[in-house]
Amino acid sequence: MFSVTVRDHMMIAHSFRGAVFGPAQRLHGATYVVDATFRRTALDADNIVVDIGAAAEQLHAVLAELSYRNLDEEAAFTGVNTSTEALAQVVADRLADEVHAGALGDGARELDGLTVTLHESHVAWASYERSL
Amino acid sequence: MFSVTVRDHMMIAHSFRGAVFGPAQRLHGATYVVDATFRRTALDADNIVVDIGAAAEQLHAVLAELSYRNLDEEAAFTGVNTSTEALAQVVADRLADEVHAGALGDGARELDGLTVTLHESHVAWASYERSL
Amino acid sequence: MFSVTVRDHMMIAHSFRGAVFGPAQRLHGATYVVDATFRRTALDADNIVVDIGAAAEQLHAVLAELSYRNLDEEAAFTGVNTSTEALAQVVADRLADEVHAGALGDGARELDGLTVTLHESHVAWASYERSL
Amino acid sequence: MFSVTVRDHMMIAHSFRGAVFGPAQRLHGATYVVDATFRRTALDADNIVVDIGAAAEQLHAVLAELSYRNLDEEAAFTGVNTSTEALAQVVADRLADEVHAGALGDGARELDGLTVTLHESHVAWASYERSL
Amino acid sequence: MFSVTVRDHMMIAHSFRGAVFGPAQRLHGATYVVDATFRRTALDADNIVVDIGAAAEQLHAVLAELSYRNLDEEAAFTGVNTSTEALAQVVADRLADEVHAGALGDGARELDGLTVTLHESHVAWASYERSL
Amino acid sequence: MFSVTVRDHMMIAHSFRGAVFGPAQRLHGATYVVDATFRRTALDADNIVVDIGAAAEQLHAVLAELSYRNLDEEAAFTGVNTSTEALAQVVADRLADEVHAGALGDGARELDGLTVTLHESHVAWASYERSL
Repeated sequence: MFSVTVRDHMMIAHSFRGAVFGPAQRLHGATYVVDATFRRTALDADNIVVDIGAAAEQLHAVLAELSYRNLDEEAAFTGVNTSTEALAQVVADRLADEVHAGALGDGARELDGLTVTLHESHVAWASYERSL
Repeated sequence: MFSVTVRDHMMIAHSFRGAVFGPAQRLHGATYVVDATFRRTALDADNIVVDIGAAAEQLHAVLAELSYRNLDEEAAFTGVNTSTEALAQVVADRLADEVHAGALGDGARELDGLTVTLHESHVAWASYERSL
Repeated sequence: MFSVTVRDHMMIAHSFRGAVFGPAQRLHGATYVVDATFRRTALDADNIVVDIGAAAEQLHAVLAELSYRNLDEEAAFTGVNTSTEALAQVVADRLADEVHAGALGDGARELDGLTVTLHESHVAWASYERSL
Repeated sequence: MFSVTVRDHMMIAHSFRGAVFGPAQRLHGATYVVDATFRRTALDADNIVVDIGAAAEQLHAVLAELSYRNLDEEAAFTGVNTSTEALAQVVADRLADEVHAGALGDGARELDGLTVTLHESHVAWASYERSL
Repeated sequence: MFSVTVRDHMMIAHSFRGAVFGPAQRLHGATYVVDATFRRTALDADNIVVDIGAAAEQLHAVLAELSYRNLDEEAAFTGVNTSTEALAQVVADRLADEVHAGALGDGARELDGLTVTLHESHVAWASYERSL
Repeated sequence: MFSVTVRDHMMIAHSFRGAVFGPAQRLHGATYVVDATFRRTALDADNIVVDIGAAAEQLHAVLAELSYRNLDEEAAFTGVNTSTEALAQVVADRLADEVHAGALGDGARELDGLTVTLHESHVAWASYERSL
């Protein structure tokens, strides 16, 4: 199995609902350093998993829709706790949509899976892994 | 599949028995930077894998039982080579006991698995992965 | 010259005023991974720069006053752009106050200087350096 | 499942053929920071996955055959795009040959698998995973 | 003293002349992860050292002139050993020219100094520091 | 001003005397990831600060004299608290001796200074800086 990973980041504000979140129930924010990993069984005709430049561009585009925003005010997240793990799924699913739409090229339709990891600090991170 | 990882560290002394260990047969020590990864298929009612604060506290508690000690003199390790990979299992199994005992909350009993990675330097690390 | 550095982090929301900030004029947030470096010419009687445990505790206390907050609503920052470099100074000055008040012990009053670095992502950080 | 990882690096020149590579079609180069991960279900009689010193030596030897070279002029890569993911497979397969030849000791023949990750920068890396 | 640092990277091929370089006398290559640090005594009217977005763009532009090239064939480096430390100076001097030309805004003309660090691997890096 | 840094590590056991050290008064250990930085005003005839290979070898040799040892039993440290900052000075002074003895070549005698940083964990490190 082969994989390629690209890294970018986003900076957002949000708050959580639920006693389990303690002080994070207040409006605060985070930088998420985001790793998107694309997997496939065999390399394509160019001997690659995916065009790494295109993968970086698509990741940047997906993060740009979230970055420099207060997620509490985004319609997509009404009534949703935008935890690190939940946001990892959001980023992964939006990237998967781009893959299926051909944004990473025809060859990328043969990708087997995708993992997105959001690092919220030097001591905590979360991942979501899915098939494609 | 979702996962959440928390990082902490411990500092211990120990020695190894066996020619394969070379100079590490002498009493020496290590800082282990420890990553504990908790996995589950679906998020809980709060939209999280596990209470990240509680996970960090439990990891800290497990490491505190080992840290600032000479493992050669700990009853738990009599006759045992406390290699990085063996210690990864010790930390993982103790965390699993805490999960099963409810220390991470009732929801954490639905966790599927756990991986513990111990970084012994910038050029070497070891992991142990188990189900829950 | 000797130095000791401890690392911690804080997560905040804020926004900026000024065209130079572009989309960061919107309410967003950041995780700051914070390094506090204490400097002195000669080690103390215990052969250290500063009690590293006390230094970590004081840094944590200073960051706790800022973390999980919307800095736009904090009285201390009314009318102030809380840029990464400006927040580095805030953290450094508050740590300096603690040093002068004796929170790091009497020996720490012989510290020569202090540098605080705030990492806002994997590709950008800012520092403020001052004497003590 | 247990694993042990060792890290080393190599510095090479190469170029790519194919429009997808854009400016990387020109002769350029890369530092690859290389992680080799060895996996097995149970630890051996010494309580380890593999002799970490021997693993580091073998990785170094495999990388030394590639490092400080222009891969475009190496017979092994004639007509091959030496992408990061393709080179990860080359390193993994050569390490697997060494394992099978006994270079990591008899015990290492019980290893279950191997993953090699090549970091080409702070924002991109690729992996190849195989059984042993 | 305040500073702001931005990080980017470049990938180049080159070779060295001189017995001291050993196997690096052969054509090979490197990824340089590049940190550019801008310093000034007091913050500007926006409470910043420099427009971090503009700084990142200028660093990217300077690196783009070098990246995906064989430096042995660049006129600017005829007869020059393009060591990591020498390239750090090249990047710093080109950034300084941009600062003086106003590419970072009028306020950036009050910058006091600049340091450029090139990381050639996880175990080696070089810096060049200059005034502005 | 130019600098070159090389990184290596050592693994030691030790204990501290003094109430300020808390649980670290017990025999424990540490991995120190060690960075040695060599500085000079102008590059040498080969366009370098120092032969990076020779610098790495000398650092490795200095660390080998300390590594895989219990520092409490080393004659050189009788009655000495081997704190991270104190060990940074030990490594720096021993490297300085090698520089003065010509182990880094004649050109290295023109080095201006040396800084050694010991990282004891992901959240704490110490440095010692001296002239040459």
